Amino acid sequence: MRQSQLFTKVRKEAPADEVARNAQLLIRAGFIHKDMAGVYSLLPLGLRVVTKIEQIIRDEMNKLGGQEVDLAALQNKTLWEETDRWDDEAMDVWFKTELNSGGEVGLAPTHEEPLTALLSGYVSSYKDLPFSVYQFQTKFRNELRAKSGIMRGREFTMKDLYSFSRTEEEHQAFYERAATAYETIFNRVGIGHLTHKTFASGGTFAPFSHEYQTVTDVGEDTIYLDEASGIAINEEVLNDDVLAELNLTKDTLVSKKAIEVGNIFSLGTKFSEPLGLSYVDEHEAKHPVIMGSYGIGLGRLMGTVAEVLADENGLVWPKSIAPFHVHLIALQGGEEAADMVYEKCKAVGIEVLYDDRDKRAGEKFADSDMIGIPLRVVVSEKTLAAGQLEIKKRDTGEVIMVTEEELFNTLRN
Amino acid sequence: MRQSQLFTKVRKEAPADEVARNAQLLIRAGFIHKDMAGVYSLLPLGLRVVTKIEQIIRDEMNKLGGQEVDLAALQNKTLWEETDRWDDEAMDVWFKTELNSGGEVGLAPTHEEPLTALLSGYVSSYKDLPFSVYQFQTKFRNELRAKSGIMRGREFTMKDLYSFSRTEEEHQAFYERAATAYETIFNRVGIGHLTHKTFASGGTFAPFSHEYQTVTDVGEDTIYLDEASGIAINEEVLNDDVLAELNLTKDTLVSKKAIEVGNIFSLGTKFSEPLGLSYVDEHEAKHPVIMGSYGIGLGRLMGTVAEVLADENGLVWPKSIAPFHVHLIALQGGEEAADMVYEKCKAVGIEVLYDDRDKRAGEKFADSDMIGIPLRVVVSEKTLAAGQLEIKKRDTGEVIMVTEEELFNTLRN
Repeated sequence: MRQSQLFTKVRKEAPADEVARNAQLLIRAGFIHKDMAGVYSLLPLGLRVVTKIEQIIRDEMNKLGGQEVDLAALQNKTLWEETDRWDDEAMDVWFKTELNSGGEVGLAPTHEEPLTALLSGYVSSYKDLPFSVYQFQTKFRNELRAKSGIMRGREFTMKDLYSFSRTEEEHQAFYERAATAYETIFNRVGIGHLTHKTFASGGTFAPFSHEYQTVTDVGEDTIYLDEASGIAINEEVLNDDVLAELNLTKDTLVSKKAIEVGNIFSLGTKFSEPLGLSYVDEHEAKHPVIMGSYGIGLGRLMGTVAEVLADENGLVWPKSIAPFHVHLIALQGGEEAADMVYEKCKAVGIEVLYDDRDKRAGEKFADSDMIGIPLRVVVSEKTLAAGQLEIKKRDTGEVIMVTEEELFNTLRN
Repeated sequence: MRQSQLFTKVRKEAPADEVARNAQLLIRAGFIHKDMAGVYSLLPLGLRVVTKIEQIIRDEMNKLGGQEVDLAALQNKTLWEETDRWDDEAMDVWFKTELNSGGEVGLAPTHEEPLTALLSGYVSSYKDLPFSVYQFQTKFRNELRAKSGIMRGREFTMKDLYSFSRTEEEHQAFYERAATAYETIFNRVGIGHLTHKTFASGGTFAPFSHEYQTVTDVGEDTIYLDEASGIAINEEVLNDDVLAELNLTKDTLVSKKAIEVGNIFSLGTKFSEPLGLSYVDEHEAKHPVIMGSYGIGLGRLMGTVAEVLADENGLVWPKSIAPFHVHLIALQGGEEAADMVYEKCKAVGIEVLYDDRDKRAGEKFADSDMIGIPLRVVVSEKTLAAGQLEIKKRDTGEVIMVTEEELFNTLRN
């Protein structure tokens, strides 16, 4: 698109109350808007990034055989009473509100209860299982403090996947496939090299859950990483028994700050028993369904990529989730040639943001660095005189001069 | 996908408290789930329909030059006080809740206030205008009664577009383009022939707004239609002055029940003035921005299509928004050949639901009619013996026998 048409602009300053660097950068570059503490809106550039993250995740969820749904946010109190999670003591992040027609409802902080109840109307036989269901849906969490930018929002889009299995073995096999899908997702969005599968607290039904922790100094969590094996342990479960079980020794562990970008959890029959999700086996015996849940926050993932890949000049996006692949910049004398490159990019399906604004070169370059599109292409009187165009890679700073033909060969890759 | 894998099943009955036919059919066919009165979740088939509707609307919004965003649901009280819409007397559908850190917040029933406030940080000069912004976002409305199925939800996804213009003339030109886009959308989803642009109450800044009303006996609104011109008038504005202005006479008007599937509204400076969204013109004079808003509820649109196109056997989807294009049904003796047709459909990109379940023919046909996919393809011992496959059109009931080659020629169209 033409940058002159984009309603956002790069700003010099972030709001004074915004202390998180990821949110500062995303706000300054026009990706997000801060509505209130912990509440952010997605602007055109930010929505493009999140949509690409969503499509990568959807792709991997579909490969797992996940069936996509979209569950309601408003929650029926009765359901959550059956699992003892309606009380604010049990679930301290509830937002609750009143119907005008009478009665209290909640805003879903997660969706185990409504999905389990819904499925009890569809599952009865062993032939109905196993399967998995996922969604991209808005969660509401009434966080007491919300100072980590988009890392811990009061309202955020989450991909939540839930699995439904007949046996512990069947559950475990799906759990391992989900873990692999998570690794693929973090690789595809460009933070695989910094992200570790981390042993964390498991609850009633499993010795451990697993978190995916991305190492960064601004992380809220502390993990202990065995760099040789790549295995990490969350501080909360680190003790001698666990070390022995995982075959690790304290000496090789390095403490790291990290941010949790995903988690996978064995739920056992915690929800299926109270909510009546069960099946009858081949021998007419009834069993509760064995469940797992698997979450990724999309805004948090965008914030994490922003945080760990940005440099002193601004955001740095990997191509897979960049809002555009090319930032085409017209400088004085290059406008007409740049227009033609722009039209040609569109014609061949290259995603291009075209800086056609009447601004100085310095401002255009600074804005481009801040926005962080992977390739910058400059068309100016000078480059044209040399019969060439300038390509600069945002991540390495590498600059090459190419002919127009070479440019399109490069961009197509 | 294989129907044996789909977790939903066609049901004989809808919930006893569900009085709306559209919701009864959508629930029975497994498209939606009723969580509470006015609160529905989208199941895999329903989400596929809504996603297609969304993509048609997005396409038309992009053609208008609309920039897509995703605004937060949680609302800052202060903003809405500035436009006098925080009070429950002024806006009677608010859901409000409390932050754990203190302070009241609302759940957005619409987004004029936050978007106008947000844009005041980006718009200052006449050079920044005009533009338009849209989103697909969840609205929360605390309706006292919610008995129309998914036609009037307490929580629903809305496409809301907002336009920002410098002059009344510029606004009017966009308004007309938006009106044309709306007509295209209703044509594309298959209800154009029943949908009328209807003069409705305009508010402070315009003599009229326009609604798009789809004629159906279960409509909540009454419109007066001049069948010759296709012009309709909402009951609420019908009087002698309006008739004279529109050059209509009472005798030619026919009263019809209709459901409002969209509306477009000139907002003037109602929001831009109190919220400080203004621009400085070429002569250094400051003016408030002139706004318009343009809404379509996605669930309501799905419900309307369901309502007006369904027949006594179930849902009838137009190809443009059908969950799948082909319902392939294997009957006894045809399983192996059906498997091959299924694989071939997938290979050439035909969207197919494959009924590979171990069920009687009668049940498969009844389920297929209820789900309403445009083309049913039956593979059985009988059809194979004749060297042919049976295609039945869901809307007309027309049946033709074709060879496999002819089948794929038909499906590709």
